[in-house]
Amino acid sequence: MIVLGIDPGSRHMGWGVLRVAGTRVEHVAHGIVDADDDLPLAKRLIIIDDGLREICTRYQPSEAGVESIFFAKDATAAAKLGHARGVILLGLQRHEVVIHEYAPALVKRAMGASGRADKAQVARMVQMFLRLKEIPRADAADALAIAIAHVQSAPARLIAAARSR
Amino acid sequence: MIVLGIDPGSRHMGWGVLRVAGTRVEHVAHGIVDADDDLPLAKRLIIIDDGLREICTRYQPSEAGVESIFFAKDATAAAKLGHARGVILLGLQRHEVVIHEYAPALVKRAMGASGRADKAQVARMVQMFLRLKEIPRADAADALAIAIAHVQSAPARLIAAARSR
Repeated sequence: MIVLGIDPGSRHMGWGVLRVAGTRVEHVAHGIVDADDDLPLAKRLIIIDDGLREICTRYQPSEAGVESIFFAKDATAAAKLGHARGVILLGLQRHEVVIHEYAPALVKRAMGASGRADKAQVARMVQMFLRLKEIPRADAADALAIAIAHVQSAPARLIAAARSR
Repeated sequence: MIVLGIDPGSRHMGWGVLRVAGTRVEHVAHGIVDADDDLPLAKRLIIIDDGLREICTRYQPSEAGVESIFFAKDATAAAKLGHARGVILLGLQRHEVVIHEYAPALVKRAMGASGRADKAQVARMVQMFLRLKEIPRADAADALAIAIAHVQSAPARLIAAARSR
């Protein structure tokens, strides 16, 4: 089973792909889709949509974890993030990927970190957890952490699904 | 020139199409894309995206007015609306429609109404302005009002564009 983690953003969309086989979790790939700050929002959304389509076509994830919106943010920030998330949820649904949403604090705790761990700490824990040679860039590390949280939060379900294939 | 007005929403997307020829503005069509409240957000976004694609394919608008987010709303409402707007901006950009955004108060003033006019007043003014037999449903009336605001806000530009065809 292939699991995709997405850290949504209207300027940078972090993504990470894991393979789950039985109780094993393997790193497959990760990256960041960067949308030029100078572009109008609608054009940035096209870049995000194209990037997500490429990822879905290439890795064929069946499940995805997406970071939920942290509602303590102000309305302007929530609206901007909402635009990117809308395009991402649409793209995942078009590819028939099963979507689960995770709050940032839950993602951190899934790796044994404090809910208040900073981005650098999360990136180091992701590196250790997946035995990566290098520390991933922050947005990609967050996406991998979300994919890990998805795997950790429902191991029984994932293992059952993997066995039925 | 065909102008599309969009009143974005994650449950109801109002839309209205006008034809502008010289100084004349004609009503072409309007409607509401309804997404079932019981569906998860990602599936509602698919319905919105499909509906918008059908409208763009059928009427081939070259310009669109989209209501901007009224930021006095709380973060949760702004985020939800953002999801729908993101999908709408993406769809319009994919169809190479030139996008303009208008604040609700500006839309009302473009028809000579008060910035605080209610939905029923806006619907009646839209009916009179476009000489419609019936008062359009609220979300569709708002969308037509946005299209009217777009036409009113840049008559010189629109007329020049229509002449150059």
